[in-house]
Amino acid sequence: MRAGVLHPDLSVGIETRRSPHPAAGDVLVAVRAVGVCGSDTHYLRHGRIGDHVVREPLVLGHEASGVIVAVGDGVSPGRIGERVSIEPQRPDPTTAETKRGDYHLCPHMEFYATPPIDGAFAEYVTIGADFAHPVPPEVSDEAAALFEPLSVGIAALRKADVAAGDSVLIAGAGPIGLLIAQVARASGLARIVVSEPDELRRARATEFGATDAIAPGEDLDPVDAFVDASGVGAAVRDGMARVRPAGHVVLVGMGSDTMELPVTLIQNRELVVTGVFRYSNTWPTALALVRTGAVDLDAMVTARFGLDELTDALNADLRPGNIKAVVYPGISQWQNTDHPGSAHPGSVQTGAARR
Amino acid sequence: MRAGVLHPDLSVGIETRRSPHPAAGDVLVAVRAVGVCGSDTHYLRHGRIGDHVVREPLVLGHEASGVIVAVGDGVSPGRIGERVSIEPQRPDPTTAETKRGDYHLCPHMEFYATPPIDGAFAEYVTIGADFAHPVPPEVSDEAAALFEPLSVGIAALRKADVAAGDSVLIAGAGPIGLLIAQVARASGLARIVVSEPDELRRARATEFGATDAIAPGEDLDPVDAFVDASGVGAAVRDGMARVRPAGHVVLVGMGSDTMELPVTLIQNRELVVTGVFRYSNTWPTALALVRTGAVDLDAMVTARFGLDELTDALNADLRPGNIKAVVYPGISQWQNTDHPGSAHPGSVQTGAARR
Amino acid sequence: MRAGVLHPDLSVGIETRRSPHPAAGDVLVAVRAVGVCGSDTHYLRHGRIGDHVVREPLVLGHEASGVIVAVGDGVSPGRIGERVSIEPQRPDPTTAETKRGDYHLCPHMEFYATPPIDGAFAEYVTIGADFAHPVPPEVSDEAAALFEPLSVGIAALRKADVAAGDSVLIAGAGPIGLLIAQVARASGLARIVVSEPDELRRARATEFGATDAIAPGEDLDPVDAFVDASGVGAAVRDGMARVRPAGHVVLVGMGSDTMELPVTLIQNRELVVTGVFRYSNTWPTALALVRTGAVDLDAMVTARFGLDELTDALNADLRPGNIKAVVYPGISQWQNTDHPGSAHPGSVQTGAARR
Amino acid sequence: MRAGVLHPDLSVGIETRRSPHPAAGDVLVAVRAVGVCGSDTHYLRHGRIGDHVVREPLVLGHEASGVIVAVGDGVSPGRIGERVSIEPQRPDPTTAETKRGDYHLCPHMEFYATPPIDGAFAEYVTIGADFAHPVPPEVSDEAAALFEPLSVGIAALRKADVAAGDSVLIAGAGPIGLLIAQVARASGLARIVVSEPDELRRARATEFGATDAIAPGEDLDPVDAFVDASGVGAAVRDGMARVRPAGHVVLVGMGSDTMELPVTLIQNRELVVTGVFRYSNTWPTALALVRTGAVDLDAMVTARFGLDELTDALNADLRPGNIKAVVYPGISQWQNTDHPGSAHPGSVQTGAARR
Repeated sequence: MRAGVLHPDLSVGIETRRSPHPAAGDVLVAVRAVGVCGSDTHYLRHGRIGDHVVREPLVLGHEASGVIVAVGDGVSPGRIGERVSIEPQRPDPTTAETKRGDYHLCPHMEFYATPPIDGAFAEYVTIGADFAHPVPPEVSDEAAALFEPLSVGIAALRKADVAAGDSVLIAGAGPIGLLIAQVARASGLARIVVSEPDELRRARATEFGATDAIAPGEDLDPVDAFVDASGVGAAVRDGMARVRPAGHVVLVGMGSDTMELPVTLIQNRELVVTGVFRYSNTWPTALALVRTGAVDLDAMVTARFGLDELTDALNADLRPGNIKAVVYPGISQWQNTDHPGSAHPGSVQTGAARR
Repeated sequence: MRAGVLHPDLSVGIETRRSPHPAAGDVLVAVRAVGVCGSDTHYLRHGRIGDHVVREPLVLGHEASGVIVAVGDGVSPGRIGERVSIEPQRPDPTTAETKRGDYHLCPHMEFYATPPIDGAFAEYVTIGADFAHPVPPEVSDEAAALFEPLSVGIAALRKADVAAGDSVLIAGAGPIGLLIAQVARASGLARIVVSEPDELRRARATEFGATDAIAPGEDLDPVDAFVDASGVGAAVRDGMARVRPAGHVVLVGMGSDTMELPVTLIQNRELVVTGVFRYSNTWPTALALVRTGAVDLDAMVTARFGLDELTDALNADLRPGNIKAVVYPGISQWQNTDHPGSAHPGSVQTGAARR
Repeated sequence: MRAGVLHPDLSVGIETRRSPHPAAGDVLVAVRAVGVCGSDTHYLRHGRIGDHVVREPLVLGHEASGVIVAVGDGVSPGRIGERVSIEPQRPDPTTAETKRGDYHLCPHMEFYATPPIDGAFAEYVTIGADFAHPVPPEVSDEAAALFEPLSVGIAALRKADVAAGDSVLIAGAGPIGLLIAQVARASGLARIVVSEPDELRRARATEFGATDAIAPGEDLDPVDAFVDASGVGAAVRDGMARVRPAGHVVLVGMGSDTMELPVTLIQNRELVVTGVFRYSNTWPTALALVRTGAVDLDAMVTARFGLDELTDALNADLRPGNIKAVVYPGISQWQNTDHPGSAHPGSVQTGAARR
Repeated sequence: MRAGVLHPDLSVGIETRRSPHPAAGDVLVAVRAVGVCGSDTHYLRHGRIGDHVVREPLVLGHEASGVIVAVGDGVSPGRIGERVSIEPQRPDPTTAETKRGDYHLCPHMEFYATPPIDGAFAEYVTIGADFAHPVPPEVSDEAAALFEPLSVGIAALRKADVAAGDSVLIAGAGPIGLLIAQVARASGLARIVVSEPDELRRARATEFGATDAIAPGEDLDPVDAFVDASGVGAAVRDGMARVRPAGHVVLVGMGSDTMELPVTLIQNRELVVTGVFRYSNTWPTALALVRTGAVDLDAMVTARFGLDELTDALNADLRPGNIKAVVYPGISQWQNTDHPGSAHPGSVQTGAARR
């Protein structure tokens, strides 16, 4: 099979590799669509994220959908042909964290596109059968791929401890900020304020759920919760100061390892501050929100690429107006392909095409 | 002032009483609109609810809105003229329950229209200033009155422990069942099933938030939570059997004092069963949900009455198609009054008129 | 190996069976001590518990300790020789319940001594390596076996939602009631009231943690929580009536499938009623409580039996003063064996012997 | 009456003031014993804590017990003569925070010894009747005074979200650290590690509940929760790094307004970080823990002073071995007074005397 590989010298190559074989309990998925995440781009530019260093060639990509084409022992062959959204984690079922229901915090986790585990910019991948979540026809391949970042938004809002009628401040109108806003809207929050320095992105925020989009530092009544999707220290400090007593603060955006934080404020207001690493048990929620139309993932896709165009895809964040780029590993070049296409069995079903 | 009074012999009279005087911390409210609740009707027909017996003449009515016309000591006179939704409870701030935040469970509670505390079918009432919640112009008098039953729905859904994308079964499509369905819809639940034997009411349920309306006993996939708004033992038992392991059951409907319940089922699935008595801290949520249009209270008003027509109002539940009757204590006869009207300072602003 | 088998005709035989082989991820345990549970006795007398019917010969016993003597693929051989307490469940790691952390509610559960899954009244058993919890030398074989019923007590107290300084009422001073009382004492509850009709058992309750032991119906100030360990409807109804508003009720005792319950009370006080089926993530807590001496399991063992005496062991509940009988499957007859004994590698380490 | 007053120039004077009069709902308390808190000493040395500045003469002291000698309107005269522990806060019952049960976060709070509200280094004080908690004879005056810092410990442990058998790390073996350790012990925690640089204080920690006392930086297995009672940035960072995934961090110690905190760690482990400002609903718990002997407050009193010795009392923290100094505002000089003493009706009942 063909796969896009990041090398330790930060070069990207499209290489031919042996297709993986589904182990017992696994399925083999022909990959349809893969979203490009900021972490993929970060690996491309820096060769590492924190302690995770690219020392061997690595396949990136962890926001993926596809079609089951083979199954391992113990998995019903009836699943072959199923369109699935991939939850890109393999927790160890025997650890304390997994048994408590926090499988995403499992210390033995194998997660796509995190060294040394390969990801999904490849024609085929394997995953545990229970982490290949079936999607119905009305969910596009692209939307199914984006269940992964949506899961980050779902996890963030769960930790924000808010309910219908409440208010939230979200810092940053990147893809994750917009997804958090969408989940907040779907959850009936009455006031969803997005704080974002860029005017174009502020306008975009109101299309994706924000009731108000403000520049950093603008006046604001206290909110029930603050979710940071910026990773910027100043935004975190500003956001914390706007939360009502006993409100929650959820740190999602990745920035520097440490930040100067207002400890006296946390104490005096008894704020509850936590972070989102990954997510557990979010796919059923993601499916419900997308299926009912409460969350719109298709509208977030702003660029599409074939596998040969992987480097362009990884750099798509530099283009103005980009929200989410999607790579089709089964297609060489998006521009020269007639869509909906042909390389795969079944159509390349995109959100755009679906409409 | 004029007030509608229920006597221990179950007769209803319209009588002239001395207007109440606002004590320190209270406001005096000229009542605009008062919803008729099933408990009002129950008192009319039975003279009691459980241990609460009508032994002295009692003013019924606890779903009320109005305008502040005077204030007691310690309350800003600037509040005079404010349109308010009344939260009809007076907890004792010094009890353990109130201090824990469960002020509705305060053992010294004084609650409107619960013997011996008079209610709101009267021209004027008093209430603690902090329980007279201001409403903006876009909220009608009738909607403001119905914040009270909406609060029951909000309290029920909080206890159901569900979130956007989840599923709920609601038994009973009376006013409370419909309000629970509306709150569920506002909260982004993906599957909101209302179980109701009456076909006409089933149809109505889908207008007020239900995604599915079924007859009792129809097939149903397991749900995350069950809320009973019927008070019928068979419905409670049926509903419990449809909840997934570790799901929640909330008993809102009032029926017989005891019920035969499936204890082994509660144990084997570790269901969490609780009840809703009243509500604490729901008015801000109610306002947010009504103001954003997420919940529509105006559409639930199906009949209007003046104070002289109080008995008709209390019997309005017998009319087919009735959802919620509203009484205007400041108006003698609704039919003979030109609306929006004149008896009060300011217009009688109804939801119907507002549109 | 030798095993004690219950037949569908309710006869018990000691039979020779092929020893089980540890599958991948499993360990093979030479059983040391096995507690007799009321459910074992119930199977002996009725051949069923609810929908679980003994249709094929069944090995009973699910409160077990032992020594690892072999390991399956993927398990470190270094574990051979480890003394372990067995958590007698095999959940399916792929179900929604397991992934949420409620693995005990997994619908595909395989649980010891629940038809058709064999239990531990046998010389050897297998279990998942992560469900064989190592115990240190200071924990006796008998105590290690009784981590299982202790886990029921831990699970019950978690659901009771109480903390140090709070109060609890426990109905029933059988083994489970006593273990709940011990966990309550270990958790610093200030008032631990056990309600029990039998005077002898009341006296015993105060030895195992109760601060007060009362006969049913005696006066009592309101408690923060009520835990039923009796399974008797009258006790459940009485207990519920003694809980403060918003307090919790936990139903542990098994009785009839349905009970007449005070629904109006549940509603008016907004009690939270739930049940305990089994337990998740309790073994680390059990070990900590036993190791520190906060809970004393050894003192609860009142009779010991060899495998040939299994029927006597199963009927030990009929003897006055019995709390917990323990069977040693590796020993034929307890009376004729020199203790600490010899059949096993290592000593038969009992609580009694340890002191 | 006589009162010890801190002036804006940081001088302390013993002055004669008019005794306060109990308003409606209040009681007048003749003060018995008052603990000296680090915040009192901080005001003495710096004239401020954060935004709270001593601009007018201020009576310090907020850890107090006494005897009710008069009652305001609406309070039963039967309470006169009651020995009480004072909860030194006056929340406004009408604010959102108070109504939610977080009355300690009420924005209109009036708290003893916080400018401009006077405290308890005086012969008489007033407090709301429901904040004057009766204590039984077996609780000494000194212990009753120390319910206040004990409440900080109770609040901290509630937020740590731990239960019997769990583990906690506490940084700092000052009075608050020791009280947290005592509450942890009372709650059945199995491993209670106190980290403290001073060897003498480490030894002391093990007397007050710690199972282990370590120097900062010593090796440690991961803990379920970390509570900081040091206010030192390095200790906070070190403590956070030792918490298991999804564990809680509670910041109690006051230090600089901001701290450099490990944000990536908070995210990767999804730690839950919060602070303790004050406390709500802790007095019943404090009484239960002291009454049962689970917490020993008397043993924490290491020095006693009369009102004329107030400056010495405020500087007692400089003496080696000091834990908690107590001032008797009704006695001029502790040294020259015959104890148990005479100025008050009833004896000056100290913990020491009680034994």
